[in-house]
Amino acid sequence: MRITMIGSGNVATHLSAALKNAGHNIVQVYSRGMQNASLLAYHVGAEPVNDFDAITADTDLFIISVKDDAIIDVAAQLAGHRKLMVHTSGATDIGELMLITGYAGVLYPLQTFSKQKEVNFWEVPLCIEGADDDITFTLKQLGQTISNKVYEIDSLQRKTLHLAAVFACNFPNYLYHIAQQLLADNNIDFNLLRPLIKETADKVQGQLPSAVQTGPAVRKDGQTMQAHLQMLGDNAYLQNVYRLLSEGIMNMAKNGKTA
Amino acid sequence: MRITMIGSGNVATHLSAALKNAGHNIVQVYSRGMQNASLLAYHVGAEPVNDFDAITADTDLFIISVKDDAIIDVAAQLAGHRKLMVHTSGATDIGELMLITGYAGVLYPLQTFSKQKEVNFWEVPLCIEGADDDITFTLKQLGQTISNKVYEIDSLQRKTLHLAAVFACNFPNYLYHIAQQLLADNNIDFNLLRPLIKETADKVQGQLPSAVQTGPAVRKDGQTMQAHLQMLGDNAYLQNVYRLLSEGIMNMAKNGKTA
Repeated sequence: MRITMIGSGNVATHLSAALKNAGHNIVQVYSRGMQNASLLAYHVGAEPVNDFDAITADTDLFIISVKDDAIIDVAAQLAGHRKLMVHTSGATDIGELMLITGYAGVLYPLQTFSKQKEVNFWEVPLCIEGADDDITFTLKQLGQTISNKVYEIDSLQRKTLHLAAVFACNFPNYLYHIAQQLLADNNIDFNLLRPLIKETADKVQGQLPSAVQTGPAVRKDGQTMQAHLQMLGDNAYLQNVYRLLSEGIMNMAKNGKTA
Repeated sequence: MRITMIGSGNVATHLSAALKNAGHNIVQVYSRGMQNASLLAYHVGAEPVNDFDAITADTDLFIISVKDDAIIDVAAQLAGHRKLMVHTSGATDIGELMLITGYAGVLYPLQTFSKQKEVNFWEVPLCIEGADDDITFTLKQLGQTISNKVYEIDSLQRKTLHLAAVFACNFPNYLYHIAQQLLADNNIDFNLLRPLIKETADKVQGQLPSAVQTGPAVRKDGQTMQAHLQMLGDNAYLQNVYRLLSEGIMNMAKNGKTA
């Protein structure tokens, strides 16, 4: 397919590379900043543009990979070209795009991307949705050229997935940060914790989290929890986090959801 | 070394197997329940016992791998044998064991263990501490027969590590559980989230968590955060968790700790 990428962020970068690798033609890369447009365009052999007037209609698909609150503005500016348009947002309903064009869809890669870290795109779950069956079929075909894990997911399900991803990715990463800071404050190398972080994520690849929960809260080890709260004595915020999550773990255990 | 394992839980199981594989002689396995003692003893070629009177003094090392609040009782019962005794607890000061015997140490494997999941013990950080330099040396030698990552860690550092491990392992696993439940409530396959969980942990193997934080909170995307809180509308507990952790992420970003 001939594809135009609108945006040059983390998702745009990894998605463009995967599409290029699969043999698709990335025609243009648009970004507000010419430097960002050029950097990504160079990597995928596309023309960089930073002006909507310079965007060509000679393409099969516009992929809009910009901040959620800019999607509709961008779509409105591209609508005149009468080409298929998809966004890559977990939180944005397909209906918002359909206010602009009936030729609309969603291509949402459910992964956390950083420009500096490579990702095996074949393993990235790709959630697709089309405004009609033909579009859904087209997007499914396209998706299968870059991922082994293409799922048809409607907007409501996608919003749930996006929310769940905050709990499964953004919040755990922040808890890693807290752990790293606790060690740094005591001159302890974060490398000591890295294998634990990795194994914690590996364990739930084959099992449910509730079945592999460990730690003082699930054991109802009140003595250790009290000692931990005391160690956090000078930080009311961390005490609140500790109490709230421990409470949840104890309730989970009580409700019999652990093995 | 001739080693006697007191306990048959997750840590005792994985530690015994690693020691056996390294060529050490597991003399006896003690557990209050004969069935548990027998199961582990069988795997490591030891004699199972469920009675302290049946524990032989013909050993070089007692490894006490029981609940934190039972360590001292167990140690007191073994003290008469006058052999080296170590516990495997993150939260217990070596001083508690030294009230019973001067021939005391700690062997704390910093990993999350489940009986049903194999672990490459060579990659498990092993935190050791001895009541004196000779004991520290002995434990370091022993540790290096089963792990490439042996660290000398004093009791205060170990308590910090144990607390940090709760934030880096137990709490993230519980957040995975919340995510899985959100999906289950909407009939969405947890497999869609598993690659994200794995990648989130992989990303911090080479970088600091603050440098790879993603999600609505670090972007200060108030619209998405409001939408998420609304989706959690019927669950005040989850709203509290969402608010508290998002607040922390926004403060982290403000303090310039993100890339």
